[in-house]
Amino acid sequence: MQRPLVTLLTDYGAGSGYPAQVKGVLLAALPDVRLVDLSHDVPRHDVLAGALLLEACVPWFPRGTIHLAVVDPGVGTARRALCVVDPEGRRLVAPDNGLLTPFLGRGARVHVIAEGGAVPAPRFATFHGRDLFAPAAVLLARGEDAAALGSVVADPVRIPWPGAEVAPGEVRGETLTADPFGNVVTSIRASDLPAGARVERVEVGGREARWVRTFGEGGPGELLALVGSGGRVELAVREDSAAALLGRTRGAPVRLVVGTPEDAC
Amino acid sequence: MQRPLVTLLTDYGAGSGYPAQVKGVLLAALPDVRLVDLSHDVPRHDVLAGALLLEACVPWFPRGTIHLAVVDPGVGTARRALCVVDPEGRRLVAPDNGLLTPFLGRGARVHVIAEGGAVPAPRFATFHGRDLFAPAAVLLARGEDAAALGSVVADPVRIPWPGAEVAPGEVRGETLTADPFGNVVTSIRASDLPAGARVERVEVGGREARWVRTFGEGGPGELLALVGSGGRVELAVREDSAAALLGRTRGAPVRLVVGTPEDAC
Amino acid sequence: MQRPLVTLLTDYGAGSGYPAQVKGVLLAALPDVRLVDLSHDVPRHDVLAGALLLEACVPWFPRGTIHLAVVDPGVGTARRALCVVDPEGRRLVAPDNGLLTPFLGRGARVHVIAEGGAVPAPRFATFHGRDLFAPAAVLLARGEDAAALGSVVADPVRIPWPGAEVAPGEVRGETLTADPFGNVVTSIRASDLPAGARVERVEVGGREARWVRTFGEGGPGELLALVGSGGRVELAVREDSAAALLGRTRGAPVRLVVGTPEDAC
Repeated sequence: MQRPLVTLLTDYGAGSGYPAQVKGVLLAALPDVRLVDLSHDVPRHDVLAGALLLEACVPWFPRGTIHLAVVDPGVGTARRALCVVDPEGRRLVAPDNGLLTPFLGRGARVHVIAEGGAVPAPRFATFHGRDLFAPAAVLLARGEDAAALGSVVADPVRIPWPGAEVAPGEVRGETLTADPFGNVVTSIRASDLPAGARVERVEVGGREARWVRTFGEGGPGELLALVGSGGRVELAVREDSAAALLGRTRGAPVRLVVGTPEDAC
Repeated sequence: MQRPLVTLLTDYGAGSGYPAQVKGVLLAALPDVRLVDLSHDVPRHDVLAGALLLEACVPWFPRGTIHLAVVDPGVGTARRALCVVDPEGRRLVAPDNGLLTPFLGRGARVHVIAEGGAVPAPRFATFHGRDLFAPAAVLLARGEDAAALGSVVADPVRIPWPGAEVAPGEVRGETLTADPFGNVVTSIRASDLPAGARVERVEVGGREARWVRTFGEGGPGELLALVGSGGRVELAVREDSAAALLGRTRGAPVRLVVGTPEDAC
Repeated sequence: MQRPLVTLLTDYGAGSGYPAQVKGVLLAALPDVRLVDLSHDVPRHDVLAGALLLEACVPWFPRGTIHLAVVDPGVGTARRALCVVDPEGRRLVAPDNGLLTPFLGRGARVHVIAEGGAVPAPRFATFHGRDLFAPAAVLLARGEDAAALGSVVADPVRIPWPGAEVAPGEVRGETLTADPFGNVVTSIRASDLPAGARVERVEVGGREARWVRTFGEGGPGELLALVGSGGRVELAVREDSAAALLGRTRGAPVRLVVGTPEDAC
């Protein structure tokens, strides 16, 4: 059998010792497990930022990977714990607070992780990453079906998931989050742009950005817009921070004026 | 033979290149080694913080794990290097500066790592993690007993290890360190509380905290006290930082007023 | 066949999700790959700092290791991508911007990575770590020779590589970069000092430093100079930051006054 592959995404801080304890639990039960950190630097309690990171990272991992994700301000309260199996066979364990929103589309199977079922009730109320989600990941890695964790539920928590409004000649969206370079991701995807469309003008929070293909095309301090590596429209400044230039990273309105190929003829 | 498992705890900074050099040495000698970072973000030269992180993380790892721990302001001076084998068979290599204090209890066997013995004398005076402790870990991973590293010593350095004073109706201790969430760990363990006791009042540095089971029970800005995931009493603020609220993370007096089950009858 | 070993050095930030995506690509193609982070905290776009980290780390890894290094302000522009095979058989893939300067010495074989050759053209213009260098590393890990990636080129980009000027009685250089402790690395190597020489005086940026063997010999706040763990002369302050004391970490002139063994007789 293939060695299990488990990824971790948390807001614990890489050096806090908490990710290490989760890994200890996994290694004690699964000596051959392969462990990969997606991130432990999700902004504290920022469920949307965590969900966006999962959306960006998870598709690059092979089938069979188990993703353990914990951004969990409600740890120890009545919030449920989930295991989602998506149509591509990905398995994700996480608190039921919207962190898995991008994976809850058509065809996803959502199981509650019953505490005190196949997974023993956690010893402590404040560290379900170690005491609940890691044991759940162990069961999955040992070949158990998600159904062993608990029954299917139809009402997983979803967070509002900003998208794009497409109208003739324009696409509107908003800024969502920044990466450590200060590049700002928006709610507009490349696939929201009409096929073959040219972007003629980009407005964001009262400023104009220039549409380019890559960072190096920008002048010093110039606000750029481009299709980022996750397929989303991003704002950037060459060798500098768009987040700092814009002064905010979430909720600023973004408008793309687009021309169709016919316009250009 | 099981693939060796080696954990690393340092104050080097994860991105400094120093942990990577230690890993290169380990991988060059042990191609199948499994490597786990406990933390590389121990506050610089803070031996107590490093020891508390070791105490929190090490018990979650399986028997046979080798723990390489380096918080070492005295590197290259006459301070000794140690290998501790505790009664559970854990092996820890570290400078003899108190970093292993939590593992020096009854039944621990403490060996000095003789420089120029089984481990060659370090080439450089400033990087014993790479040049002394990693080679020592390699020998242990290859099946050598700690005795191969050097002789038993009876006087390992211990740092003062703050505990709890238990008196009728109260338990006293102090704050020790903060995690990246700003949760503040104290010297009082859950096991210091009388069996079945109710915590009726918590005082810390002139403030009062409310005793709860988990973070989500707190109101905005409210100082909470609870049993943390390491079995220690912790101070917290829901989705905020107790460390910031308290203004200090080490040495603030903590007092728990406790009622016995009989009081409640 | 030995499991492949791939190291990663980037300026992406460990928690950005970008290193994780690179690892996903590698793991999807190479289920048995061993992955080691050299650093993801290279100062943004600082090619010299990245090159110095590579120089410090790479020699500690075993033959056959593949090093994937991306500090790449010109991503998506016409800058080339390289695979360098050095005389020790190390293989490094990186943008052609000088990041591999320390590995371009006599005997190195330098191949361009032809986009759209053995490695498909990247889907996105801004993330060649994932879309170009990771697939190149996969080919090498599967046993392909660097020649499969593209043809040999004779003109790889080199960045100015500060060294030492050795004159009778003195060695001159400059400061280059700081580590997270605030230790400042200089362009003078221990091997630049005349054999058996005594360092009698150290001047850096108008200040004097005392020549010592290790940090612990310093007094509080005293500027020290010593041979660091990478074989370079470094400046340090015991349990404090030389970078903060000096106020700059790059380009400050350094002068060592040295006495020969004969002087001492």
